Amino acid sequence: MVLATYPDHLRAAVDSYLTEINFSDDAELAGLQEAMRYSLLAPGKRIRPVLCLATAAALGREPESVLALAAAIELIHTYSLIHDDLPAMDDDELRRGRPTCHVAYGENVAILAGDALYAEAFRHLVEQQEGEPINVLRAAGHLAAATGVDGMVGGQYLDVATKAPAGADGLRRLHELKTGRLIGAAIECPLLLSGASEDETMLYGRFAVELGVLFQIVDDILDVTGTDAALGKPSGSDERHGKRTYVSEHGLEQARELARRSHGSARAALAEAAPVGAPELEQITDFIYTRTS
Amino acid sequence: MVLATYPDHLRAAVDSYLTEINFSDDAELAGLQEAMRYSLLAPGKRIRPVLCLATAAALGREPESVLALAAAIELIHTYSLIHDDLPAMDDDELRRGRPTCHVAYGENVAILAGDALYAEAFRHLVEQQEGEPINVLRAAGHLAAATGVDGMVGGQYLDVATKAPAGADGLRRLHELKTGRLIGAAIECPLLLSGASEDETMLYGRFAVELGVLFQIVDDILDVTGTDAALGKPSGSDERHGKRTYVSEHGLEQARELARRSHGSARAALAEAAPVGAPELEQITDFIYTRTS
Repeated sequence: MVLATYPDHLRAAVDSYLTEINFSDDAELAGLQEAMRYSLLAPGKRIRPVLCLATAAALGREPESVLALAAAIELIHTYSLIHDDLPAMDDDELRRGRPTCHVAYGENVAILAGDALYAEAFRHLVEQQEGEPINVLRAAGHLAAATGVDGMVGGQYLDVATKAPAGADGLRRLHELKTGRLIGAAIECPLLLSGASEDETMLYGRFAVELGVLFQIVDDILDVTGTDAALGKPSGSDERHGKRTYVSEHGLEQARELARRSHGSARAALAEAAPVGAPELEQITDFIYTRTS
Repeated sequence: MVLATYPDHLRAAVDSYLTEINFSDDAELAGLQEAMRYSLLAPGKRIRPVLCLATAAALGREPESVLALAAAIELIHTYSLIHDDLPAMDDDELRRGRPTCHVAYGENVAILAGDALYAEAFRHLVEQQEGEPINVLRAAGHLAAATGVDGMVGGQYLDVATKAPAGADGLRRLHELKTGRLIGAAIECPLLLSGASEDETMLYGRFAVELGVLFQIVDDILDVTGTDAALGKPSGSDERHGKRTYVSEHGLEQARELARRSHGSARAALAEAAPVGAPELEQITDFIYTRTS
């Protein structure tokens, strides 16, 4: 399997934008800002914000026109990683090849860095994102819902408090909430910002759901097959945490087959949503399937 | 000193509204929702959301017209209490006379209950609050800023990581961020929602700053003079946590004098902002000065 081409020009735009965000000029708050930037600017593929820019491109908009929204989504993703890694949660000490935020800055500062990233994400979105106010409001509401009880935080609750509800449906529900909703928001929010039709939004929504499932299956496979160096954290952590995954439920070979099918479904859903083609979204879909970390 | 009349009709409206918020219909998430409601619905004076309704009344609007905003502010206040009480932060076991959220539900669920309350606050505000979209956006941006790095979370960082920057100015800055900005937002957001003039907003802003200072001085005094039963938590906790307060800096008598002056300044600022009178805001100002818990 050959590694797919990644839309690195979009990633570069995101990285450059994130680097320039200044959260405060107050020197007394430099330590908090440093912890936020330490986690935010760790090297990564920026899949969620790049999806956001790629969706704007597929809609015929300038990708740069949704940079504020894209940044808000990456801030939220970073906050979720910081809180997930905390001792009371997954208790992980390595992330993206570096000590996790609470190891580097202490648990109290890590909790607050996560809290602050969430606040600044919304501030950024509602203050900086161009667009009709009613559309910005819709995108903000969708992003808040995707990260609340029936979204990312609810999924994390199912993960740490229940180790996933019973059955394959329970596992799917956990992942839909924990990772799927934010990936979905990265695709759906640009549509809301553009005032797209309900039909178009629904078609992209189907693609987003398939992409979220694909992402999670591959994530579970990589946790078993990936190297520590490539993952930037110890492999096999799901098993050590006693987590149910696509691999623990179905075995490695069957999980690979599920990934193959899911990739096909995602590409088919994308072709339906964007009949004239969406090169960057196609690249990201292939990359999520073939990635090694 | 006689206890001031409190606008209990506004508090009843807030309590009734908060009780009816349903965060999710998903039975698997009932445990998360229970932890959120446990902290949110603990008995309290609801000072921030009541300020919000009282400000709307002072502007000639129906207090009920800002209930969604008021609820969002109380959700955020509750989230901040849950995270402040965590073992890695202030490590408090009692709040409002009951075990703190992490004692009742575990540290992981408490962190997530806080995170979820924050997300649902923004969701509630942008999805439920009536008003011109541009004005709702402005209020949402102001609330996000008031709770981010240059706001509540930054203030909590100064408190736990630095025990307050040096000098009386440093202590004032800590309190301005940690408690003042959210109290300020409770007053300023209704003005933004109403599209009030810059002059009017500035005058109310001055009142808000004075009220925040008054609140904090009285809070520090009560931590020394209050009874455990009235406070709902052990008194003297500031001293045990080694925190600098108005009492530790100035002594009890001088702190009382500062409170008296601050109350006068707040009433004067209010009289300037609302020359025709604002009975509920006057009552809350007097209550904050004379409260015993």
